[in-house]
This record gives sequence, structure tokens and C-alpha cells, in this order.
Amino acid sequence: MEYETWSKGEKAIARRAFEQAYERECTALAGEVRRRAISIKEPSDMWALHDLLTRERRATDEKYDYRYSVLIFVFARLIREGWLNEVELAGLAEEKLAKIKLILEM
Amino acid sequence: MEYETWSKGEKAIARRAFEQAYERECTALAGEVRRRAISIKEPSDMWALHDLLTRERRATDEKYDYRYSVLIFVFARLIREGWLNEVELAGLAEEKLAKIKLILEM
Repeated sequence: MEYETWSKGEKAIARRAFEQAYERECTALAGEVRRRAISIKEPSDMWALHDLLTRERRATDEKYDYRYSVLIFVFARLIREGWLNEVELAGLAEEKLAKIKLILEM
Repeated sequence: MEYETWSKGEKAIARRAFEQAYERECTALAGEVRRRAISIKEPSDMWALHDLLTRERRATDEKYDYRYSVLIFVFARLIREGWLNEVELAGLAEEKLAKIKLILEM
């Protein structure tokens, strides 16, 4: 698969979609963190919360990779995981949207 | 300073005091974690909470060292930091209590 080129307009759409997905995922995680923090009963609950944050931070850092060479795959993953809706990518070239669809159907 | 010997009774007192201090410190930290979790406004607040937990977990692991060879120093530190009250060590040999006082006066 050759690398796509991204127009200025596409870059703006991509950046916005990427940031919205990140915000959503972090908001969901923050909800979980809040619930777990409120129900800390003993030290081990607190360290388990720390473990969760360590895991999720690493996973999030790895997942939200904005390099244009991998962005199509990142978007497909975010759609599959429910953090992004396909309609939020409207405006990207048909070729890119088709590639994302293809990945999602795999 | 030569190593102290600890009688069975002293070990029971020491263990209980140690665990109480640990519980108190963790309870205080859990309060802070709860407050920070509730007021997460954006992802960076959540990662700052993770940093706090990483720091505190490391510090706590290091501080709560139950080896008898260092316990006198650990107790002195816990008293100085307010996690332990001297009266909770009543029953330890006078010599040990005197050493703790000496460290606290240093």
C-alpha cells in the first residue's frame, strides 16, 4: 500500500477527528478512574488504580499516533473501537475512505 | 550503631505500629487521589494524577521497609512525618525508644 498524500483541508479534518476521538477515549477513562478512586477501600485498590492508569496511558500513547503514514490504520481502529464515527471523516479523499472501509471489513 | 534484637512482644508492637502508619498514609493519599480524580477536566489532569501515583507508590515502597536492621530509622521518620505517634511504640525496649528520640532530635 503506497503512502497517501494529504491536502491541507484533509489534514484539518484528520486532526480534528483525531483529537475528538482522543478526548472521548480520555473522558471515558476519566469516568472509570473517578469510579475506582471513589471506591478505594484499601491500599491495594489504590495501587490497582495506578496499574490501570499505567496500562491505559501506555496503550493510549501507542494508539494515538498521528504520523500520516499510519493514520488510515489509526482511524480504522478508532472507528472499530467506537471512539470515532465514519461521518467525522467526511471530506477526506474517496480513496482514503475506501481504504479505511477495506481495513474495517478485514 | 549495633543492631538491636527484637523480642517476640516487641515484634508484635512494631508490626502493628508499622501497619497503622501505612494505613494512615495510604488513607491520606487515597483522599488526595479521590479529590484529583473528581476534578479531572482534561487528559493532562489524568496523566498528572498517574504521575502522582507513580511517585507516591515508589516513595511508599521505599519508606515502608520492615527490615529490623532499619526499623528504628523507619519509625523515627514516620513519627517526624506524622504517620505514627510515639505512644504507639510503648512496649519497645527503652534503648530502642531512646535511639528513636535521638534520631528525632538530630
